[in-house]
Amino acid sequence: MSTIHADRIEKLRAAMEKSGIDAYMIPTADYHNSEYAADHFHAREYFSGFTGSAGTLVVRPDEACLWTDGRYFIQAAGELEGSGIILMKTGEPGVPSLEEYLDQKMEEGSVLGFDGRCIPCREGKALEKIMKRRKGSLNTASDLADGIWADRPALPCHPVMVLEDDYTGEDIESKLGRLREVMRQEGTESYIDSKLDNIMWLLNIRGEDVTCNPVALAHILVDHRNVYLFIQDGEVTGELRSYAALHRISILPYDDFEDFLSIYDHRGDMLCDQDCISYSIYLAAAGGLGKRAGNCGLITKKSPVGHFKSVKNGVEIANIRGCYKRDSAVMCRFIRWLTERVADTDAEPVRESEAAGRLDQMRSEISDFMDLSFATISAYGPNAAMMHYEAVPGVSDAELRPEGMYLVDSGGQYLTGTTDVTRTIALGPVTDDMKKHYTLTAVSNLQLMGAVFMDGCTGANLDILAREPMWREGLDYKCGTGHGIGYYLGVHESPPSIRWKVFPGRLDEPFEPGMIVSDEPGVYLEGKYGIRIETILEVVDHIENESGRFLSFEPLTLVPFDRNLIDPDYLTPYTRKLLNEYHERVRIEIMPLLSAADQEWLISQTEPI
Amino acid sequence: MSTIHADRIEKLRAAMEKSGIDAYMIPTADYHNSEYAADHFHAREYFSGFTGSAGTLVVRPDEACLWTDGRYFIQAAGELEGSGIILMKTGEPGVPSLEEYLDQKMEEGSVLGFDGRCIPCREGKALEKIMKRRKGSLNTASDLADGIWADRPALPCHPVMVLEDDYTGEDIESKLGRLREVMRQEGTESYIDSKLDNIMWLLNIRGEDVTCNPVALAHILVDHRNVYLFIQDGEVTGELRSYAALHRISILPYDDFEDFLSIYDHRGDMLCDQDCISYSIYLAAAGGLGKRAGNCGLITKKSPVGHFKSVKNGVEIANIRGCYKRDSAVMCRFIRWLTERVADTDAEPVRESEAAGRLDQMRSEISDFMDLSFATISAYGPNAAMMHYEAVPGVSDAELRPEGMYLVDSGGQYLTGTTDVTRTIALGPVTDDMKKHYTLTAVSNLQLMGAVFMDGCTGANLDILAREPMWREGLDYKCGTGHGIGYYLGVHESPPSIRWKVFPGRLDEPFEPGMIVSDEPGVYLEGKYGIRIETILEVVDHIENESGRFLSFEPLTLVPFDRNLIDPDYLTPYTRKLLNEYHERVRIEIMPLLSAADQEWLISQTEPI
Repeated sequence: MSTIHADRIEKLRAAMEKSGIDAYMIPTADYHNSEYAADHFHAREYFSGFTGSAGTLVVRPDEACLWTDGRYFIQAAGELEGSGIILMKTGEPGVPSLEEYLDQKMEEGSVLGFDGRCIPCREGKALEKIMKRRKGSLNTASDLADGIWADRPALPCHPVMVLEDDYTGEDIESKLGRLREVMRQEGTESYIDSKLDNIMWLLNIRGEDVTCNPVALAHILVDHRNVYLFIQDGEVTGELRSYAALHRISILPYDDFEDFLSIYDHRGDMLCDQDCISYSIYLAAAGGLGKRAGNCGLITKKSPVGHFKSVKNGVEIANIRGCYKRDSAVMCRFIRWLTERVADTDAEPVRESEAAGRLDQMRSEISDFMDLSFATISAYGPNAAMMHYEAVPGVSDAELRPEGMYLVDSGGQYLTGTTDVTRTIALGPVTDDMKKHYTLTAVSNLQLMGAVFMDGCTGANLDILAREPMWREGLDYKCGTGHGIGYYLGVHESPPSIRWKVFPGRLDEPFEPGMIVSDEPGVYLEGKYGIRIETILEVVDHIENESGRFLSFEPLTLVPFDRNLIDPDYLTPYTRKLLNEYHERVRIEIMPLLSAADQEWLISQTEPI
Repeated sequence: MSTIHADRIEKLRAAMEKSGIDAYMIPTADYHNSEYAADHFHAREYFSGFTGSAGTLVVRPDEACLWTDGRYFIQAAGELEGSGIILMKTGEPGVPSLEEYLDQKMEEGSVLGFDGRCIPCREGKALEKIMKRRKGSLNTASDLADGIWADRPALPCHPVMVLEDDYTGEDIESKLGRLREVMRQEGTESYIDSKLDNIMWLLNIRGEDVTCNPVALAHILVDHRNVYLFIQDGEVTGELRSYAALHRISILPYDDFEDFLSIYDHRGDMLCDQDCISYSIYLAAAGGLGKRAGNCGLITKKSPVGHFKSVKNGVEIANIRGCYKRDSAVMCRFIRWLTERVADTDAEPVRESEAAGRLDQMRSEISDFMDLSFATISAYGPNAAMMHYEAVPGVSDAELRPEGMYLVDSGGQYLTGTTDVTRTIALGPVTDDMKKHYTLTAVSNLQLMGAVFMDGCTGANLDILAREPMWREGLDYKCGTGHGIGYYLGVHESPPSIRWKVFPGRLDEPFEPGMIVSDEPGVYLEGKYGIRIETILEVVDHIENESGRFLSFEPLTLVPFDRNLIDPDYLTPYTRKLLNEYHERVRIEIMPLLSAADQEWLISQTEPI
């Protein structure tokens, strides 16, 4: 493995020298700042061997470094072994950030290269600033991978579908009306967006260009009269064409967006979100606006579409609640099947991949199922300490034995919503430490689920409700506590988010009723075991009185915690009450969806503790 | 009262018309963005009658409005009654902010007037932006109060003292060295500051120009060679003159600062904090820099001096710990005296002002006592619902009866530190609701005190530990949970702070060991009663392990909670443990400072619950 990647990096260095580039950066990104990029965009993996969903490779003549976050420290260390690439653990003490690294290493007059289409505008501007400080420059026009990666997959291209109002709850005209109202308030004439889920949500369409993500590669420009959709020819169906005609959407070639921005008849300021357009698009838009007489400019603001999308409407909420019940019922059936199967000493042993396959099969039988929402994480023992582990037969695929813990994190894409759920299960005898850590995780999960908070609170305010039981024990999970979730869209959607660190210029948006957020604390002990409990929560109105308006959460995920892993010594009367109330709710809501045998199992799992 | 103020406002309107001003704004501020301003600066009170420590008056030809925050809603409503001035409750639903109000009310081409010396730079720039949007302008050169307020007090002017290293723990050269190091890092040649406590801290001097605040009116410019101190002649003692000579500090007239900025030989960029200079100074500095050839500019950054000041050094911490013990012992003696006196049916009744006077007298006998740190809040029954109540004989001065609750919030200025403490006490029979609300407040106080948190956390992360028990009951206190505290300086000092609302552009600084912060949740029921428990906390190192570095708090204030007000039904095993541990600590630390009779009382008050 490692020599292959060392070889590829040498080729990259040769290409860099030819282009006069002193450092070349390859992020994990497509042209749309998507979290999960299509295979065509896996250049970082191609060069480094690291397969995680987040990471940035920087190659210099004498050094190559890869930055990734806490979810991937263990996995990346393994995958990079022997490649000579230095692993930079983002946020760890003493580890320079990418910015600090460039500041230190880039010599005066040097050139930093990257494909400007794969870097969000905000990041590109930050890099521009660094290189200006270093009296150097950027080369953003070259995708050096293209000349080296011989069998690089083509851009994905699949037909687009139109989603009916029964699923969306709001037609395109209403959505465009709301967007244009914000454009008016901001005094802008046009709006551009390259964020795929924003575009899908706004136009009520879905694609299948990215595994587990029902999106189509596209860009959009909306002004007060027209909508311009930039999309590959092969994606445009007859249905989309009629729909576009009906709603005055002009369909234009995907690749023409940047050129269009320079010839478009700008009649005033243009609105955009720096996280929703690439640096190349920013340069093109700024160039186009700059050509106009008068004072036309680019007004940057957190995307109003992103905010609209995050607050689910009544139809979406009703669909999502039903969807989560059906999904939870399958999780219950799966857990019962798995624990009984592993306990059955006469049966054939089960491996991680087989368990995942079984769950995926069961989920695919749910009504309105379209796809998984991500590759199922089915992890036994120490494998569960890797937050984003994937079992691969023949490579890493542990046999589940009747002892210790098993973690399963999975979800589905349905016409009625996107699900995401993690449960950790005892497969047999467990240690006291496992029980302690599981109970702490359960308490974290429940304390956040039980929160009552003032309207205006953000995830940064609430995060400590989940972490405080951990912190008191000197433990911490190196990731956020929660992320937003789309409606038949991305399984990670922002806003909202729940994490304690606040980044300047990226203030969290306050919670609003109708937002959906995950609650997924965990304990990860490298080489030993991993625990995560993930329950998806809906933000709801709680009470309004003379003190103000209070919000709270309702759990959408309804799958019991594992009572075999609960050590009551770590419960308080309050958290015990929360646990029993949750289990009672699970029993009431999920019972009708189960067979008699599964019902019996659920009753036993949800007895008060 | 009200006709006096109506009359004054009419005079102001006449002056406005003469100066061509359409709206005149009077903040509660001196030239230094001080929280408490000297009498000379009480123009807002002169015109409106509102005596609170925070509020902004805006007068227009047909309307006058006063904005103030939650601490003063009740008081302001009373003081403004009949004046015709509209009370604007900041942050309440439907109440426009000052900015929104100006946006709505200022007509195109209109002029907003204020004394630019009394508005911090950041605010002035925001107002500039609003008026630009309204196609209007600012008039910042006129202090209209000057022509109307006949017997306006002169600027205060008192001699300045030099504070010895035994108290400061760091000499001026070391402090200047640290500041210049930051100036170097930022690539700047000079630094300006008008924040009085910053200047006192940096130069190791103290003044007495503001009641309860040991500061002298001053401005400062520091460059890599010199220090220029702008201060009134009457403040300069022989001691200060020698000290200044020794440390190459040029003493210049207080009023010359703005002029100096325009003639100063700027050799490069100038560093400043937008919250530490006035809008007038900003204009003068920008003007001076603008005259230079080359690219000299004003670099704005959170004041490094403010940050240095907030992290107390070893000498300061040792002094503060001793200071808080002595101050706490006096609080114990006071509480015992008061409860026994009120319970004694043969004794003369005590009024609020008398109780305050007794406490102030007791405090003044503590070693190193210099002044109170603010006017003692001595509030019985419904008066305690006003967060910043002050008893005034003949005006409002309730008799303490042997029933219900009494709240006392007080503190001292000592050479060894600044104290601030609030306790709420039962004076006789209390209702179940009082006990419930007191216990919730105690739990809030203890949960925050007992926090363990990762290095990097801010007050916005921790605030919910205090509020969560309240929010669950549908209660909320309309103020922050905690503020930083100076060392023989301001009783309110920032950073740090503990509050859940995060304002864009004003991110809280993370906690660091050596920071000192108050923990003061409360329940305030207008017309009924008020409860506040305020314990001052020191940030300390907790543990460092593979999860990272954890911090926690140690209480500096050591005064028992009132066990007569604790309803154990609202305690959990965890919070009961915190309470008993705190009481044990109080007993151990404070016993040696008390007489035998007081010791007996303390033992009874600190028995485990």
